[in-house]
Amino acid sequence: MVERKRWSENFSEWFNEVIEEAGILDKRYPVKGMNVWLPYGLKIMKNIEKFIHEEMERTGHQEVLFPALIPETEFKKEAEHIAGFEGEVFWITHAGHEPLDVKLILRPTSETAMYSMFALWIRSHADLPFKVYQIVNVYRYETKHTRPLIRVREISRFFEAHTAHADFEDAERQIKEDLEIFDNLMKRLAIAYIISKRPEWDKFPGAFYSLGAEVVMPDGRTLQIGTMHNYKQNFAKAYNILYEKEDGTHDYVHQTTFGMSERLLAAVIAIHGDDRGMVLPPTIAPIQVVIVPIPKKEKQEIVYEYAREIEEELRTAGIRVHLDMREKRPGWKFYDWELKGVPVRIEVGPRDVENSTVVLARRDKLEKITIKREELVDKVRELFDDIMKYLYERANEWLNSHIKRVETLEEAKKAFEDRRGIVEIPWCGEESCGLKMEEELDAKMLGIPYPEEKAKAPEGSRCPVCGRDAKFIARFARTY
Amino acid sequence: MVERKRWSENFSEWFNEVIEEAGILDKRYPVKGMNVWLPYGLKIMKNIEKFIHEEMERTGHQEVLFPALIPETEFKKEAEHIAGFEGEVFWITHAGHEPLDVKLILRPTSETAMYSMFALWIRSHADLPFKVYQIVNVYRYETKHTRPLIRVREISRFFEAHTAHADFEDAERQIKEDLEIFDNLMKRLAIAYIISKRPEWDKFPGAFYSLGAEVVMPDGRTLQIGTMHNYKQNFAKAYNILYEKEDGTHDYVHQTTFGMSERLLAAVIAIHGDDRGMVLPPTIAPIQVVIVPIPKKEKQEIVYEYAREIEEELRTAGIRVHLDMREKRPGWKFYDWELKGVPVRIEVGPRDVENSTVVLARRDKLEKITIKREELVDKVRELFDDIMKYLYERANEWLNSHIKRVETLEEAKKAFEDRRGIVEIPWCGEESCGLKMEEELDAKMLGIPYPEEKAKAPEGSRCPVCGRDAKFIARFARTY
Repeated sequence: MVERKRWSENFSEWFNEVIEEAGILDKRYPVKGMNVWLPYGLKIMKNIEKFIHEEMERTGHQEVLFPALIPETEFKKEAEHIAGFEGEVFWITHAGHEPLDVKLILRPTSETAMYSMFALWIRSHADLPFKVYQIVNVYRYETKHTRPLIRVREISRFFEAHTAHADFEDAERQIKEDLEIFDNLMKRLAIAYIISKRPEWDKFPGAFYSLGAEVVMPDGRTLQIGTMHNYKQNFAKAYNILYEKEDGTHDYVHQTTFGMSERLLAAVIAIHGDDRGMVLPPTIAPIQVVIVPIPKKEKQEIVYEYAREIEEELRTAGIRVHLDMREKRPGWKFYDWELKGVPVRIEVGPRDVENSTVVLARRDKLEKITIKREELVDKVRELFDDIMKYLYERANEWLNSHIKRVETLEEAKKAFEDRRGIVEIPWCGEESCGLKMEEELDAKMLGIPYPEEKAKAPEGSRCPVCGRDAKFIARFARTY
Repeated sequence: MVERKRWSENFSEWFNEVIEEAGILDKRYPVKGMNVWLPYGLKIMKNIEKFIHEEMERTGHQEVLFPALIPETEFKKEAEHIAGFEGEVFWITHAGHEPLDVKLILRPTSETAMYSMFALWIRSHADLPFKVYQIVNVYRYETKHTRPLIRVREISRFFEAHTAHADFEDAERQIKEDLEIFDNLMKRLAIAYIISKRPEWDKFPGAFYSLGAEVVMPDGRTLQIGTMHNYKQNFAKAYNILYEKEDGTHDYVHQTTFGMSERLLAAVIAIHGDDRGMVLPPTIAPIQVVIVPIPKKEKQEIVYEYAREIEEELRTAGIRVHLDMREKRPGWKFYDWELKGVPVRIEVGPRDVENSTVVLARRDKLEKITIKREELVDKVRELFDDIMKYLYERANEWLNSHIKRVETLEEAKKAFEDRRGIVEIPWCGEESCGLKMEEELDAKMLGIPYPEEKAKAPEGSRCPVCGRDAKFIARFARTY
């Protein structure tokens, strides 16, 4: 029976334990908010990134790699951007025994590293759209409580795609493509999410508008796991990124960015987990099937041989399989692999050898089935599909059961009594009313549903703060 | 005809041009010694790294990822190491608007980041050997002239393997394994190299001994492209990395490291290149075969169709192929792909369609052959093997023709008149004599040949400085 008691009631502790015990990260590195990636955690993350690279390739983004250090002079070219990041950058002031002439910052994100180069690279309309990305380490001096994978001072696996376009419409097309890429990725991770258009006061510093993708974590708080920004020409003007149009005149490019990070892994761990630990989607599990032999003394060798045959057959079929030959009790191994979230466990005992059967235990539902030996590969593949489907459905139910639509502030407060999930409230669109609701609810406005067709308030509904006609549905939540 | 005039006579200029024009790096990033990786360059480098990952997997090294920032307190635990690196680290002194309590350095290499964690991870002999690696960005405030890929302040693709062992013998076995890994990698890159044991005064700071792998560049200077260090227990004592032996007593581990970087790419570009640009080994070429259609006006469509069929067939065979349909003259395309080092070019004209033939042009020898259409895949694969063989042989000849054995300082000076290559001289083994020779020759001692059997001076030979019996053969060169 799947239990999710500690998982939801004591999520923070559960999460920290799983991260440590499953070998994802070591949090004991002697710099606050910076963690060491352990082999198993890094493998999962790289499997996630494999899908990102594939999607980037499919959509014609080119991979680049920029330096991690940015001169103060470049960093300070776009006013809103500085204002947004200045308080949280790390400063390199000395090298060797000398002070630097121009101080350097560690990139908190790469706009200000990239865009003076874009100005050199982009010349004409034929260069557009221009689409690049990188996956790199970035640094933010977070003053809030840090948490591994979720709020860190070193984001080790920061994905950032940067694009430039001839006009606003083409930039808008890019945002649509980003959403499609993001959706493809979420399907591979079996994650259900919502997209919101951030309110003006919570946009990315320097953006014209910002979209955010959120999931609801086991404790009911939301986690932003992806962002897409349309910068319009804001940065292009600051960094002088001009292109020649077909008619020979020049104009600034329109730009967008798309960002993700190891928060994707945090979401995978959190959303699919249960009290026994992680449940990895087979798509990204470093080990998709683990074989645990359960030998009886006199029949040890035939069980091992049978196990090795199964291993070989699965490997040949392209399945990531591991045969656990450690000298430990089977129960200990079950516990270990359940914690690590291996999607399918195969148990092999003497009776299986006799009957030519195989026992498949699925991690998500904690159920076992016995199959015939000759069905092995087909059944395992079916099971993978089934697990993906189940994980997604469960995640989707979880998400939907945590979104509540209300009409008044009182209802909203009531809906927030357990401090969980997302509350949707009609809103007039005024910043003052939005901020007032944030204050009253002790929650953050995620924004309005996106695309905006979904954001319209129902006919006749009113802003609960000012009483005027509501224009939008606004989403509120306690956020990470 | 292959020409290597500018390549060898004006290497520095040739190298900078190729890097820029072939789309490897952009050197215009506004921080000295830090460059932007362009898509093509990054792809080649990642193909090189694919082999590194494979070798690491094969030899049981686990991939990890450590933070890039190291607290001053950790950095300052091993005295020789500090002395060696202190003058070239970047210091992070502030975050946001505040000074940091403990200053941080940007890792110049990761010993001091990793080893306090090793002390937590390694408990008993059962944990040994312990083998991890990472490929990361590291930072060194180089005061010498910087050069892309060769001498940079941000090493973007620094490979470092770190191992811990029960005793000196096992650490020595690791060094042997490193040499084998390195040799496998060099075969994939068709690079000929030598290994030298560094003199005491040029060891890695904190090492018991250091090995270096060198190639001879087109201008005759040597480039170090790999290093292996045996640390003995030096770092283990500074970082308190103890393990419990089988008999219950405790001892410090023995450690080794193995390092490489984007200098591998520098070597590939330099050593295989010619006056037309790069010549990539097919093993790592992002595009192994480029197809350039040469249509005549009236037969355009049938040529394109034929080209597409060839493309499809090669792709299906697992060959990385690109069909160049840009609206440019064939001659312009030839020039472009030669510069970029694509190993095989296929030219397709109307006569090829008629005769069912294909013209293969190999980049290394600049020769063409005409083959039958049905031999395509086999012949291309053969050609790849042939190219690898030829590139290696040429590189090996180049290397060997640049190593001169002499007996006296006068001969050595004469051999160095052209300031090219490696000179081997008998040496008594005394530091003072070694340093004297460095001074007289205006060259650096690379060390003595490794393994040490190869380092013995011939019976009766004498150190040209002090006249005593020579113990070793010492190698000198102008180095990068």
